[in-house]
Amino acid sequence: MPNNKNIPTDGQKLNINLRVIQSKNPAFHVGSHVVSRCGWRTHAVSDGKDLTPIMSDWAPDVSLSLALGTIGMPGLTALYGIEEVLGLQKNETLLVNTAAGAVGTVVGQIAKIKGCKVVGSAGSDAKVAYLKELGFDEAFNYKTVPSLEEALKKAAPEGYDCFFENVSEACTVLRMEGFMVNRWEHKHPESLKRLMAWLKEDVSSNCGIKCMPTFHFYKNGKMVFEFSGANLETLENKLKELR
Amino acid sequence: MPNNKNIPTDGQKLNINLRVIQSKNPAFHVGSHVVSRCGWRTHAVSDGKDLTPIMSDWAPDVSLSLALGTIGMPGLTALYGIEEVLGLQKNETLLVNTAAGAVGTVVGQIAKIKGCKVVGSAGSDAKVAYLKELGFDEAFNYKTVPSLEEALKKAAPEGYDCFFENVSEACTVLRMEGFMVNRWEHKHPESLKRLMAWLKEDVSSNCGIKCMPTFHFYKNGKMVFEFSGANLETLENKLKELR
Repeated sequence: MPNNKNIPTDGQKLNINLRVIQSKNPAFHVGSHVVSRCGWRTHAVSDGKDLTPIMSDWAPDVSLSLALGTIGMPGLTALYGIEEVLGLQKNETLLVNTAAGAVGTVVGQIAKIKGCKVVGSAGSDAKVAYLKELGFDEAFNYKTVPSLEEALKKAAPEGYDCFFENVSEACTVLRMEGFMVNRWEHKHPESLKRLMAWLKEDVSSNCGIKCMPTFHFYKNGKMVFEFSGANLETLENKLKELR
Repeated sequence: MPNNKNIPTDGQKLNINLRVIQSKNPAFHVGSHVVSRCGWRTHAVSDGKDLTPIMSDWAPDVSLSLALGTIGMPGLTALYGIEEVLGLQKNETLLVNTAAGAVGTVVGQIAKIKGCKVVGSAGSDAKVAYLKELGFDEAFNYKTVPSLEEALKKAAPEGYDCFFENVSEACTVLRMEGFMVNRWEHKHPESLKRLMAWLKEDVSSNCGIKCMPTFHFYKNGKMVFEFSGANLETLENKLKELR
C-alpha cells in the first residue's frame, strides 16, 4: 500500500506493530499482530519475509506496543547481552550507558533481578530520576558531572565487573577480570615448559619469545640483586637504595 | 641466615633465585636451584614451604635468571591472562599497558605467536623502541602523545578486542564484545516468554520489569508513530519531522 504522504519515509528501518487486515499467507491470520521493519506507515503489503508474528500467548492485559520495546528487540538485546555475552553473576557491578533508552532500562532491571548492583549513565536529570525510579542503584548525568572518573568512582568505589553500551540493536559489552597467577598453580609445570619451548624457538628461528635484558648487580663481591626489564627509573631507584 | 647489612630488607616479597648449598629436605638436593620470596639476600634458611624448585629439565644454555622472568611468575602471568582469562583468538587486536615490563613484554610476544595484532603503551621513547624490537605492531609513549584517544585510534583504527593491564602479579584484563540481537534468533520465542513473565511479576509484586512509558502519536485521526523511552530530544526531533 502507498505511504500516507504525511508520514516521513526515512524511518524505513524502524520496527512498527501492524494488525493483519487481509492475508493470503496461512502463517499470518487476519486479526493477528506482527512486527515489521517497513517503517512508519498506515498500511503495508508484505510477502511475510520481513514480518515477525507477535507471540501467540500474549497476555491480554499487556499493551501490544511493548512488542516494540521490553518484549521485543530492545528487551531481547538486553537479555542476550547480559546472559549470553557477559554471563553476569549475582553481586557483580554493572555500568550501563545510554541507560534511559529502550535497551538500557531493561538491561538495568534484568541485572537487578539477577541480584547485581547497577549504575546508569544518562544525559539529563529527568533521565537520572527515571533510572532511580526503575531501581538503578546509582545514576548520574554524564553531561553535568564535574569529572566522569570521579562520578564512576563515587557510584561504585568497589569497581565495575561489566559494562553495557548500547546503540540501537548493536551493542558492545565489556567484562573486566582481575586475576592472580596462582589461580592456575596446578598448571605451572606444564606452562613453564611451554614458555621454555617458545624461548628456545626464538633462539633458533627468530620467532617465539625474546628475553628481557637481565642485569646482575654485585656489591662487595656478592650479587645483591638482578634487574630484568626496561623501566630504567625503577632501576635507578633500586641503585639509590643500595648506596 | 642473617641478612647482609648492605642489602635492603624492604624487598622481602621479591622473588630471588637461590642455589641449595645445604639440605635436610629430600625435595631440594644440594646444587639445585629454587625460587624464593625471601627478598634480596646472600643466604636464607627455609623449611621448603616458600621455595619453588626450578624445572628439572631446564635447558643448560638458558640463563637461570629467566626463572624470575619469562620462564617464571611474569611469564606465567602473561600466559594465563591470554589463554585462561581472555581466550585470545587469532587476528584479534590486543592493547597492553605497562607493555615494557616483565609481564607486558611476554604478553605481547605470546599474542604475536598466536597471530594477533599487538599495541603497546609505555612511558618512554626508549621503551617504545624496545617494544617494536620485540615485534609489537604498534607502540606509543603515553606520556608524550597529544591525545591518548587519538593515539589508540591511530594504532588500531579497527578497534580493540582485548586489553591487558598488569601491575606485578595482579592483572586486570578486559574483553570487549559487540553483538547483534539476531545471533540468538533461535532463542527468541523462549526469551520473549521470559521477558513477559518478568513484566507480569512487576505488575503483581513490584519486582521484575517496569515498562518504558509509551506514547502514541496521531495525525488526521491515524497513529503516525509511537514513542517509548525517556530521550525527549529524539521525541522532539520526530515531532519536527512530522510538522
